[in-house]
Amino acid sequence: MYEVINGGVTAAKGFKAAGTSAGIKRSGKPDMAMIVSDVLCAAAGTFTSNVVKAAPVIYDRQIVTEEKYAQVVVVNSGVANACTGEEGMKACKDTARKAAEILPGIDEKAVLVASTGVIGNQIPIDKICGGIEKLAGLVSDTEEAGHEAAKAIMTTDTVSKEVAVKVVLSDGTEGIIGGMCKGSGMIHPNMCTMLSFVTTDIAIDQALLQKALREDIDTTYNMVSVDGDTSTNDTCLLLSSGLAGNSPISEENEDYALFKEALHAVNETLAKKMAADGEGCTMMFECHVVGADTEANARQLARSVISSSLTKAAMFGHDANWGRILCALGYSGVMFDPAKVTLSISSAAGDLVIVENGVSTGYSEEVATKILSETEVVCLCDMHMGEAEGKAWGCDLTHEYVSINGDYRS
Amino acid sequence: MYEVINGGVTAAKGFKAAGTSAGIKRSGKPDMAMIVSDVLCAAAGTFTSNVVKAAPVIYDRQIVTEEKYAQVVVVNSGVANACTGEEGMKACKDTARKAAEILPGIDEKAVLVASTGVIGNQIPIDKICGGIEKLAGLVSDTEEAGHEAAKAIMTTDTVSKEVAVKVVLSDGTEGIIGGMCKGSGMIHPNMCTMLSFVTTDIAIDQALLQKALREDIDTTYNMVSVDGDTSTNDTCLLLSSGLAGNSPISEENEDYALFKEALHAVNETLAKKMAADGEGCTMMFECHVVGADTEANARQLARSVISSSLTKAAMFGHDANWGRILCALGYSGVMFDPAKVTLSISSAAGDLVIVENGVSTGYSEEVATKILSETEVVCLCDMHMGEAEGKAWGCDLTHEYVSINGDYRS
Repeated sequence: MYEVINGGVTAAKGFKAAGTSAGIKRSGKPDMAMIVSDVLCAAAGTFTSNVVKAAPVIYDRQIVTEEKYAQVVVVNSGVANACTGEEGMKACKDTARKAAEILPGIDEKAVLVASTGVIGNQIPIDKICGGIEKLAGLVSDTEEAGHEAAKAIMTTDTVSKEVAVKVVLSDGTEGIIGGMCKGSGMIHPNMCTMLSFVTTDIAIDQALLQKALREDIDTTYNMVSVDGDTSTNDTCLLLSSGLAGNSPISEENEDYALFKEALHAVNETLAKKMAADGEGCTMMFECHVVGADTEANARQLARSVISSSLTKAAMFGHDANWGRILCALGYSGVMFDPAKVTLSISSAAGDLVIVENGVSTGYSEEVATKILSETEVVCLCDMHMGEAEGKAWGCDLTHEYVSINGDYRS
Repeated sequence: MYEVINGGVTAAKGFKAAGTSAGIKRSGKPDMAMIVSDVLCAAAGTFTSNVVKAAPVIYDRQIVTEEKYAQVVVVNSGVANACTGEEGMKACKDTARKAAEILPGIDEKAVLVASTGVIGNQIPIDKICGGIEKLAGLVSDTEEAGHEAAKAIMTTDTVSKEVAVKVVLSDGTEGIIGGMCKGSGMIHPNMCTMLSFVTTDIAIDQALLQKALREDIDTTYNMVSVDGDTSTNDTCLLLSSGLAGNSPISEENEDYALFKEALHAVNETLAKKMAADGEGCTMMFECHVVGADTEANARQLARSVISSSLTKAAMFGHDANWGRILCALGYSGVMFDPAKVTLSISSAAGDLVIVENGVSTGYSEEVATKILSETEVVCLCDMHMGEAEGKAWGCDLTHEYVSINGDYRS
């Protein structure tokens, strides 16, 4: 049980944040954010599976794996610091050193860094250092400060993405998990340029923190696809200040289950916000596969549907072109009997069974189009094989996606 | 050694063809084609790997596997006869029966059928039967007749696709291999709605015919992607009339090698024509991976690049956004060292090395944009791991692709 509350990364006790313009983006829009904890935090992280890893991914993975604790996160948008060689790695180190210099009592090794933007350009380190000085003067634990940070990590995102939840632990302590993320294009996380930052005040063993995060991303961020491109920069960081006052979670007990449930709510909400803000999209599309033989197969089927360019284009056209959905299930790599499949669609405008036993139900196209004209649509696929289920989230493919990405760098 | 000649499926001795309008497409455009051989042909076929297989795919696979010989191919465009259940299978059978009735001396089991178009609608069997009657009166061995057939199998294709080559076998006999195909959307063959029909007069054992086709599609049709969607209908049929007069190829000798080389030329040409006519595209984009450790890895890397939505959108924008290419190599599933990769681009406008050792060469964006503004562009990726290479063909992602597929059925 958890309750959704206002706020983002500053909702949990001990966390301050800020966002500012450091002059990295030509537009002059906010392009740097910082999260600072009052105390050293247990740190967990998951990173892109792309062989080509951005410098900050390599840098942070080492901190999370070896140091296991951190206190500061410095993020820039505009430049991805990917495919930047030795110079890119040096930029990460220089960023951490600068933050440790400016912020009182911070060790260089407790500073995590993250970048998102154009691949291949070098980080303008002077601007980053200037940005850190500004951010150090701005950080605050207010909801507004968290919101400014969420705005500063946006690239082609059209809205900032935050959520926070409150959970009551077994000893009566109230703990909070809050997060922010960005992601709009190059989104097909295996672990996207997705960046997600989650903070909590719930005291929990670092190994359990990492385990909880590692397990949860498979049913949240990794089930979102905007364009099938797995970024070089995907990063999800989770910091625990431990300041909630609970007796620390050190085994997989009831409190760990409560923590995981609340963490899942935060991650799923942020993941869905990314899908709903996919580059150029006009609607969010959930594929919910039920009746699969295994959960892994259910997820693979769901992800194949929301990744299909033809299905995405049909969604843009509000067209119940279910053949494309069945086709995408068919090339997912999962075996099933097409003659048993049931498909139905639903949204705020109603719900409708469109396929039974693999063939059309002779449904009304008019009703289907009405259902598909909403901004959130669910397609339920019943495979009639077993009891397992999985969900994936995508969006429609639009002219605007092509415009954004045919002319991104200029 | 082979020579490209004029023509398509009627170029080889013994083959007649025709195309006509049977009233299946609302537009009144040609929608049925027929290929008829004077003699029973050794038949080979490769079909979609999609779990959801169109009725004609199931039907033809059985003919090719069990009968191994065929004499007629009846093709319709407009309706895919996929996801049509028992009624769809009956339509295949009725089509074959009608062709056997109308054409003199043809066994029902020697008739192959193929369909392409909208998934989920039932075949209008009356129109198909009327079309077969018209086609039976039209079939001819002229180049023009082959061309009419090629036009009648088009859906969203903007041009018809044919090629023929002549090869001189070891005994001095001249043999011909000719083909036609269609494919523009839902193209990501693992085996696309790609339909390809290849005819030859070279006498060859049926098992070797099937082996040659099976092996060749992995480096030709299966290396094309327009949108990542593997169709329910992908079919490639290869018929040998044996009328060239050569001593039949019954082992993997010099003539088999000559046959395979010529077959590859036909298949690669047809495959590239599909990529160049991808739905809504303005250019064809070849990714040529060299220096890979294995051929399978080279192909996987090449296919990942031409399948990337972001790379495709960058191509539309004539933007040398090489980070997206390196990113797509990185998520292909193949391991390599990003710090060793060299990328160069070339076209009729010149060539340019844009990445060395994984980072930008500081090339001129102006020159790069000029190269990328041509209708055929090659990206050469040297992985510096070994000697293996592979090629894949795709196209740009455009506003027009979205328009075509956001409103396909209406």
